[in-house]
Amino acid sequence: MNDQVVQLSYALDTFYFLVTGALVMWMAAGFAMLEAGLVRAKNTTEILTKNVVLYAIACTMYLLVGYHIMYSSESGGVIPSLGFLIGAEHSVSDVMSSGGDVYYSARSDFFFQVVFVATAMSIVSGAVAERMKLWAFMAFAVVMTGFIYPVQGYWKWGGGFLDAAGFQDFAGSGVVHLCGATAALAGVLLLGARKGKYGKNGAIYAIPGANLPLATLGTFILWLGWFGFNGGSELMVSNVDEANAVAQVFVNTNAAAAGGVIAAIILAKLWFRKADLTMALNGALAGLVAITAEPLAPTALGATLIGAVGGLLVVFAIVTLDKLKIDDPVGAISVHGVVGIWGLIAVPFSNSDASFGAQLLGIASIFAWTFIASLVVWGILKAVMGLRVSAEEEYEGVDIAECGMEAYPEFNVGKK
Amino acid sequence: MNDQVVQLSYALDTFYFLVTGALVMWMAAGFAMLEAGLVRAKNTTEILTKNVVLYAIACTMYLLVGYHIMYSSESGGVIPSLGFLIGAEHSVSDVMSSGGDVYYSARSDFFFQVVFVATAMSIVSGAVAERMKLWAFMAFAVVMTGFIYPVQGYWKWGGGFLDAAGFQDFAGSGVVHLCGATAALAGVLLLGARKGKYGKNGAIYAIPGANLPLATLGTFILWLGWFGFNGGSELMVSNVDEANAVAQVFVNTNAAAAGGVIAAIILAKLWFRKADLTMALNGALAGLVAITAEPLAPTALGATLIGAVGGLLVVFAIVTLDKLKIDDPVGAISVHGVVGIWGLIAVPFSNSDASFGAQLLGIASIFAWTFIASLVVWGILKAVMGLRVSAEEEYEGVDIAECGMEAYPEFNVGKK
Amino acid sequence: MNDQVVQLSYALDTFYFLVTGALVMWMAAGFAMLEAGLVRAKNTTEILTKNVVLYAIACTMYLLVGYHIMYSSESGGVIPSLGFLIGAEHSVSDVMSSGGDVYYSARSDFFFQVVFVATAMSIVSGAVAERMKLWAFMAFAVVMTGFIYPVQGYWKWGGGFLDAAGFQDFAGSGVVHLCGATAALAGVLLLGARKGKYGKNGAIYAIPGANLPLATLGTFILWLGWFGFNGGSELMVSNVDEANAVAQVFVNTNAAAAGGVIAAIILAKLWFRKADLTMALNGALAGLVAITAEPLAPTALGATLIGAVGGLLVVFAIVTLDKLKIDDPVGAISVHGVVGIWGLIAVPFSNSDASFGAQLLGIASIFAWTFIASLVVWGILKAVMGLRVSAEEEYEGVDIAECGMEAYPEFNVGKK
Repeated sequence: MNDQVVQLSYALDTFYFLVTGALVMWMAAGFAMLEAGLVRAKNTTEILTKNVVLYAIACTMYLLVGYHIMYSSESGGVIPSLGFLIGAEHSVSDVMSSGGDVYYSARSDFFFQVVFVATAMSIVSGAVAERMKLWAFMAFAVVMTGFIYPVQGYWKWGGGFLDAAGFQDFAGSGVVHLCGATAALAGVLLLGARKGKYGKNGAIYAIPGANLPLATLGTFILWLGWFGFNGGSELMVSNVDEANAVAQVFVNTNAAAAGGVIAAIILAKLWFRKADLTMALNGALAGLVAITAEPLAPTALGATLIGAVGGLLVVFAIVTLDKLKIDDPVGAISVHGVVGIWGLIAVPFSNSDASFGAQLLGIASIFAWTFIASLVVWGILKAVMGLRVSAEEEYEGVDIAECGMEAYPEFNVGKK
Repeated sequence: MNDQVVQLSYALDTFYFLVTGALVMWMAAGFAMLEAGLVRAKNTTEILTKNVVLYAIACTMYLLVGYHIMYSSESGGVIPSLGFLIGAEHSVSDVMSSGGDVYYSARSDFFFQVVFVATAMSIVSGAVAERMKLWAFMAFAVVMTGFIYPVQGYWKWGGGFLDAAGFQDFAGSGVVHLCGATAALAGVLLLGARKGKYGKNGAIYAIPGANLPLATLGTFILWLGWFGFNGGSELMVSNVDEANAVAQVFVNTNAAAAGGVIAAIILAKLWFRKADLTMALNGALAGLVAITAEPLAPTALGATLIGAVGGLLVVFAIVTLDKLKIDDPVGAISVHGVVGIWGLIAVPFSNSDASFGAQLLGIASIFAWTFIASLVVWGILKAVMGLRVSAEEEYEGVDIAECGMEAYPEFNVGKK
Repeated sequence: MNDQVVQLSYALDTFYFLVTGALVMWMAAGFAMLEAGLVRAKNTTEILTKNVVLYAIACTMYLLVGYHIMYSSESGGVIPSLGFLIGAEHSVSDVMSSGGDVYYSARSDFFFQVVFVATAMSIVSGAVAERMKLWAFMAFAVVMTGFIYPVQGYWKWGGGFLDAAGFQDFAGSGVVHLCGATAALAGVLLLGARKGKYGKNGAIYAIPGANLPLATLGTFILWLGWFGFNGGSELMVSNVDEANAVAQVFVNTNAAAAGGVIAAIILAKLWFRKADLTMALNGALAGLVAITAEPLAPTALGATLIGAVGGLLVVFAIVTLDKLKIDDPVGAISVHGVVGIWGLIAVPFSNSDASFGAQLLGIASIFAWTFIASLVVWGILKAVMGLRVSAEEEYEGVDIAECGMEAYPEFNVGKK
């Protein structure tokens, strides 16, 4: 292959990384809109603030330390090495002398990876919504995006022990979604439920989201962004086989989301007698999370079914978590955690390189590390600064207490 | 050309298809926001639900049967052949032995096409808003996206008789927009107008949309998505002439939308004495629909004018349909149907391969097939399950009746 | 290099231009949502209308005359030459005989440039919100996008005297953002503050925005769009060095925005005792504006710091402008003007081709030209048709007076 063709291939693969990375960045807006739509009006400014700031924190912490931990540690072990910043860019001679191993910009790789850590952190904000202190959340975001996420990320994508063990996780049903959901679960357990969510004798009170068009918009944004999330995770597009693979991933990602919607809305209709929009939205997200562990190997029809199972599971999980009094206002733990596990378990059905044993090892490792590390960090924060706003602030809404401004100041909003 | 260059070309054309396809998928969010902004608050959850679910149905039905009907039937005739799923991917040797005929992934083609059928179906949801039963709509979506759309799509893009007759429709002013609008018209005629829309002695009552920022957002989303819709329809970008063509399509698409806005807002100011935002939005969409039949051949100035005529037409069409008591809450029939016809008729002005005769044949064929087939399906649904919610449900809003939840539950919304 | 590789490079660079241009177009939606979220409910329809129409005007005027002024004038001087439309496309033989100088479609260049002029104009609409006559604004948009912007754009990017003097402005902290902010400042000075904004004895009354989710969405849209804005301004991606450069620009753009958010939210917390969401949003935008003058030369950490300084500056600037009774409802002059100047001044810190002298010359030239020309045009418009709505219209909201429709007609909105 002559030099110009090598250079052009490098350019195409880099551009592909940047475009798909930009789509993943867009998911930050998706989470912000989804969560802002599903909380009450009085807690909307704060959840928006959290989403903007967590994204900024994630980008900065991952730059400072997280990326090095995740991708520059020695291969094969459990404990990564500490280091800072993101290393050098590839020169033309690096590329030419690599024999094809260096085929895209190091900066484009960082860009693609940094938007993933933000995704993982976004999952947390929804689950702890409406009662957590803003600055405790931000402090957790610093540790999560700089250390907790990168360590388990290193285990799989940085060449650590899970990768060596044959654990398969194409785009992060485990590394991103289960990790985020697990950190959220630890926070929710320490934080407790919102006032008024659970009553006597097992009564569960619905607390409807204030703005369903926002929630729907957020879901569509996430759906679009997921083409980058999964599509970019093929990591190369510049020849026939790779281009075919990326196209298959796009088709399967879309098909799984569609399957999730259809399964969830039918189940909701049969069970609750209503075409529950929030379940349709959660069904879409569940389909997307489910296919993320292996969006390449299944056929499009198989992907539809994997997504459909995710769509059923998420409805059951949301109902079950409520029975367990685990209060997750947006269903993040169900969508990203429960369905993330389903996605990982489903890999061996289509990918013969995967085994159930390795998948279970990966699930257990990611869950154990993230849960324990998060619990420690949340626990320290609880002791030092407190996790929860006062009962009065919760009643009045965290917007005024934390941000000093209402999200909809002119609208006549019934306090609920 | 050496093999690596062929492979790289294939990769670029595939990636181009996937990026433009993702932009078209984003139009689903655009329709959802546009329609949610233009209906009343009490019918917002339901229109959001419809938009999410119809997209999922379209993706699934087109995968199961629609794509085969549209693209795998024998060329040249009226009646396509039935078949299932989406066929095999191209191997490297297929590509190399094809002499340039196989130049992008079969999966990327499916991805691009599947988001088009969703667009066609999205057009329907707006027109029947605020009074149709949700599950009747979904049932129609199954037939429309699996059968009605693919049959006429085959006539043009699948090599059927309209293609043979010289009918020109670059990106689907007819195949997508007129088809969707015609199915909507058939539904609206069987469904009837919303209560309170038309009074005695020809009185027409305006029913303002509840959330104009959403409607504006939806329009901008559609505008952005249309670069994929038209830009991807060139089907190749990988050499100088093709890249120039794609660039021309982007420029013309944008110019036509701009022309549509300016013409519509000036006409609205002169006619209604106000700078009517909804007419500006419909003007943008009309410009986009108008240029879709031929976004390549005109100059940018010509595209501006084609769009401007679309912008004028849509204002007249909306007023005229109201006089005819055809109640279309979002103006979908005017934007996509009336202006779609204008776009098709305008093709021969700039493209010498087109003739007015062939364009009229295409319009008549697409309209006749879609109208009759849709009328039959809507009619069966009306007989079996009914199309229209009860008067009480319509008065209370379909959100509670169909979805069991309000879109803005905390906001003090005046029932209108 | 053989012909096929040249053609493929041309295709990739063209496609890169179109994708990044589409991202910049998307910024029009960002400004619309940001501004609609930050004004009061009664002025929302009008600001949406302005944003849609100004984009259409910008596209049309720049096509008719602006692009020619900016890019087809003789190099080196102050006064551009007048001309119309956008010239011819490159043929294959043009490309092959150019020795690499002609490497992307002329149409793709126009598309990329035309969305920049719309950005500059979008900056103006926010600053003059809530009290300017719609049609006076539109008339200004015609002159701004057809003449004022292109003249100073020619000075730098069209090869005029600022380019010859060594003024460095990679993607337009000066040419786009300072220019837009300066035109806005001239308008605001002639227009005066909103009724009720400033009281006796230096009292300043906060007028909160009506819809913070919209403002947040707008900020995320702008953040995403900025990857196109800065990333596309490298103008080439098709070899290793250029691909690396584009990747660096993406990383730095993101890092600067993150730095701006963190700095602004911490300063707001320390100063105002609240985690002020609007300051976080302005911090993000300030980071983006600051890095726009030189997003390539700094390291990612340097970019974070440049953005952070921007985030601090914007908070001080907003407070200072209020003390000076310069009423800018969305902070556009602070974000795009003050921070734009910071971005330009910061260039010599990382780029050795830049000098403080040349940067100051650029700032002074762009400011002087835009301010004087805008003041003349705003002045003429004030004399001929008036700039400001009547006191009663301002009290009732410009939506009814100008557009004849409310943005949220069913919602019980407290008049403020």
